[in-house]
Amino acid sequence: EYPSSQPSAAAKKSEPNRNKSYDPRKPHIADTHMTYGNWWLHVNWLNVTLIVGVPLLGCVAAFWTPLYWQTAVWAVAYYFATGLGITAGYHRLWAHTSYSATLPLRIFLAAVGGGAVEGSVRWWARDHRAHHRYTDTEKDPYSVRKGLLYSHFGWMLMKQNPKRIGRTDISDLNQDPVVVLQHRHYLKVVVIMGLVFPSLVCGLGWGDWLGGFIYGGILRIFFVQQATFCVNSLAHWLGDQPFDDRNSPRDHVFTALVTLGEGYHNFHHEFPSDYRNAIEFWQYDPTKWSIWVWKQLGLAFDLKQFKQNEIEKGRVQQMQKKLDQKRAKLDWGVPLESLPVMEWDDFQDQAKNGRNLVAIAGVVHDVSEFIKDHPGGRAMITSGIGKDATSMFNGGVYLHSNAAHNLLSTMRVGVIRGGCEVEIWKRAQRENKDVQFDKD
Amino acid sequence: EYPSSQPSAAAKKSEPNRNKSYDPRKPHIADTHMTYGNWWLHVNWLNVTLIVGVPLLGCVAAFWTPLYWQTAVWAVAYYFATGLGITAGYHRLWAHTSYSATLPLRIFLAAVGGGAVEGSVRWWARDHRAHHRYTDTEKDPYSVRKGLLYSHFGWMLMKQNPKRIGRTDISDLNQDPVVVLQHRHYLKVVVIMGLVFPSLVCGLGWGDWLGGFIYGGILRIFFVQQATFCVNSLAHWLGDQPFDDRNSPRDHVFTALVTLGEGYHNFHHEFPSDYRNAIEFWQYDPTKWSIWVWKQLGLAFDLKQFKQNEIEKGRVQQMQKKLDQKRAKLDWGVPLESLPVMEWDDFQDQAKNGRNLVAIAGVVHDVSEFIKDHPGGRAMITSGIGKDATSMFNGGVYLHSNAAHNLLSTMRVGVIRGGCEVEIWKRAQRENKDVQFDKD
Ligand code: HEM
Ligand code: HEM
Ligand SMILES: [Fe+2]
Ligand SMILES: [Fe+2]
Ligand SMILES: [Fe+2]
Ligand SMILES: [Fe+2]
Repeated sequence: EYPSSQPSAAAKKSEPNRNKSYDPRKPHIADTHMTYGNWWLHVNWLNVTLIVGVPLLGCVAAFWTPLYWQTAVWAVAYYFATGLGITAGYHRLWAHTSYSATLPLRIFLAAVGGGAVEGSVRWWARDHRAHHRYTDTEKDPYSVRKGLLYSHFGWMLMKQNPKRIGRTDISDLNQDPVVVLQHRHYLKVVVIMGLVFPSLVCGLGWGDWLGGFIYGGILRIFFVQQATFCVNSLAHWLGDQPFDDRNSPRDHVFTALVTLGEGYHNFHHEFPSDYRNAIEFWQYDPTKWSIWVWKQLGLAFDLKQFKQNEIEKGRVQQMQKKLDQKRAKLDWGVPLESLPVMEWDDFQDQAKNGRNLVAIAGVVHDVSEFIKDHPGGRAMITSGIGKDATSMFNGGVYLHSNAAHNLLSTMRVGVIRGGCEVEIWKRAQRENKDVQFDKD
Repeated sequence: EYPSSQPSAAAKKSEPNRNKSYDPRKPHIADTHMTYGNWWLHVNWLNVTLIVGVPLLGCVAAFWTPLYWQTAVWAVAYYFATGLGITAGYHRLWAHTSYSATLPLRIFLAAVGGGAVEGSVRWWARDHRAHHRYTDTEKDPYSVRKGLLYSHFGWMLMKQNPKRIGRTDISDLNQDPVVVLQHRHYLKVVVIMGLVFPSLVCGLGWGDWLGGFIYGGILRIFFVQQATFCVNSLAHWLGDQPFDDRNSPRDHVFTALVTLGEGYHNFHHEFPSDYRNAIEFWQYDPTKWSIWVWKQLGLAFDLKQFKQNEIEKGRVQQMQKKLDQKRAKLDWGVPLESLPVMEWDDFQDQAKNGRNLVAIAGVVHDVSEFIKDHPGGRAMITSGIGKDATSMFNGGVYLHSNAAHNLLSTMRVGVIRGGCEVEIWKRAQRENKDVQFDKD
């Protein structure tokens, strides 16, 4: 049996996004039609309160809360720390194992990541693996195909049927005690790292207990959440697709600026276990920079990186795909196999009777429309009428440009039976009927 | 006989760049070695005086000549007019017949073009046609392959063997009375339009006879010359080649700014009879704009233009060429035809004995190095060892990305005899030895 068809640890009822009262025999509320009578049942009121309600209250409270500069600096610094908890910890370390971390670093990341209030590592990474494995499909927990707002936070604000989300293997996470403990004590971690700790710093540091709570806690949580949510929404909606356009992920510097470097998302979905999201040194990826610094400090090791050769191959193939699409939209002349076959004598007869036919490389071209426009002059082009002008056209008189060859192909009207009829052969033919023709 | 092999009118001794004393039986000075003893014979002293000497004297004279603002404005305006004489007249009208002009416009262009002091239309257009027909070869009168300075004005400062320059058909020019008259009275045109007329304007206009001569005459000639020379030098040296890189012409906005729009020279060499050099509306091509305005005024007609389809074809092909060069530099794995053939049983035996072999689409891959790095985890990839993992790899378990396919191809070690060995067939085989295999 394949690993994926085994009942996954992720599917257990004890999972944090599985409602305890969930009965798999009854249809899930998310699978029923939304009406004026039941819409409030569809809403996940707990998440609405946490993600929208509390931050709004925080905004109101901010009116009465003076902002100390120390608190402002701290809130921004802690914003970056908790953001890194999500991007360097939850995402690149645990969801993608793109590097390994020593115990102290893992504890730090699990702690500050918890302070961002976006679920436990275990819950987050499981959903995220499903997102990668089933990108843009029904099984993707935050598929952008269901709308930008859905992928941003609609998937949390509305109830979801847990059975819908693709299963993934998280056995490696269950073996990491930091992950297991953080999951078990998740609520404590959230309260302490999300609210208590930032208030303590400001309170003990410069006496600003309230500011620490409102700015360092509530509003900072709001900003970190909205920023990291952008990885699921904006990064699947805005920007280029240099590596593959089969699915929605996109690269954009704006998303990168908002998400601590997670904005090179087209790259990331193609090379998910690369510890980098931005591969160029001048691109903004502070998450990558942090991991690199931790490596220098001996805190992180085994940084995974796809070979440049593999990356370039993807780029070349995507460029080829785009080029082929462009090529398909252009007119390349009647395909040779659709042209009527003409006898050489017939070609010459028609040319003598006034049709402006020129044979080049075994193909007959009607140049009537072009004679007056020929950049080499009327005399030149008319000198080829009724003749095999292959060699004249290809350097005998003038080595025509690529553009001229393209133009020529739009004038095709027939092919000569047996292919070319090069000048020199005709002369031989006139002299000796039994001449041998080279054909290859 | 082809038109080009007829003795061209261009080759006559009476031509302006044929020295009257030129004897075709003696070796031309340009074909002799330059030494300390004869270098002064190689120099075209007349041109050196006109192109370098006089302008230098003009610079010196400018020290003692006050510059009136009216004279400055006039010099710049007349710079543009005489520049257009070259670009819109000599070049796009006569050398390339990219549009037709009424008699008044032709007279105007021949007059101001003469005021730029760069030879007669007839001489200029003949050389220019040779430049297009024999670009970058020995027969190109100003081939950039001989150096940037040579293509700029070296070809005029040093004596050239007139026999070296490619022959071209200028019979159409010989039928234009304006061209013929300008050629016959060329010296008068130069003196009047180059020096007398600008001095007259400033003298009669605001009494600045000397300023009109120095600034509107000598120095303005110097700037127009140097600017238009850039079409032969800079435009073959600086910039991109979006249409074809077979030859040297290049597109660059800087060259366009200097040359009244002649800087899109890669386009121009591909589509020489297009009245435009810049095809995008936002690109700088005042020569094109002028021709367009003349058309609105009824002075110009039959503006030639290549179809967008033809232009895009050139662009696509050049992009393809660059892409193919990039592709060729990458490692795409051992080509299938160079792989050893393996029996299915042999493959399984080796896998059982510990080699990490996975068969996908009839090809055997050694995944040993990659197991620890597999983004889908160890369990997933090892579940494919010793099996035909074609369907698992292609969506059965996970629909791998393009990047994964690329990576896979670098792990090839053999091909299975007879191609695939898909799971379901093996089961059939076990049940019934006479099962039919589909092979196509
Ligand atoms: C039969 C179809 C022909 C087409 C579509 C064609 C097209 C062109 C084009 C597009 C150019 C511009 C320069 C370039 O793109 O390379 C050109 C230039 C030229 N063509 Fe043709 N041509 C044809 C036939 C001929 C023939 C039969 C001759 C000679 C016997 C000829 C002689 C020349 C010459 C000498 C030039 C150079 C003009 C110059 O730049 O001064 N062409 N032709
Ligand atoms: C044999 C050579 C294999 C290679 C080179 C390979 C390569 C990759 C790569 C590059 C990815 C990252 C995502 C992507 O680019 O699509 C990936 C993901 C994955 N692979 Fe493989 N793979 C191989 C075999 C297998 C096999 C045999 C299975 C299953 C039986 C498997 C299951 C998966 C799964 C489930 C993922 C998704 C991981 C996630 O995003 O959570 N792979 N593989
Ligand atoms: Fe994503
Ligand atoms: Fe990810
Ligand atoms: Fe040129
Ligand atoms: Fe030209």
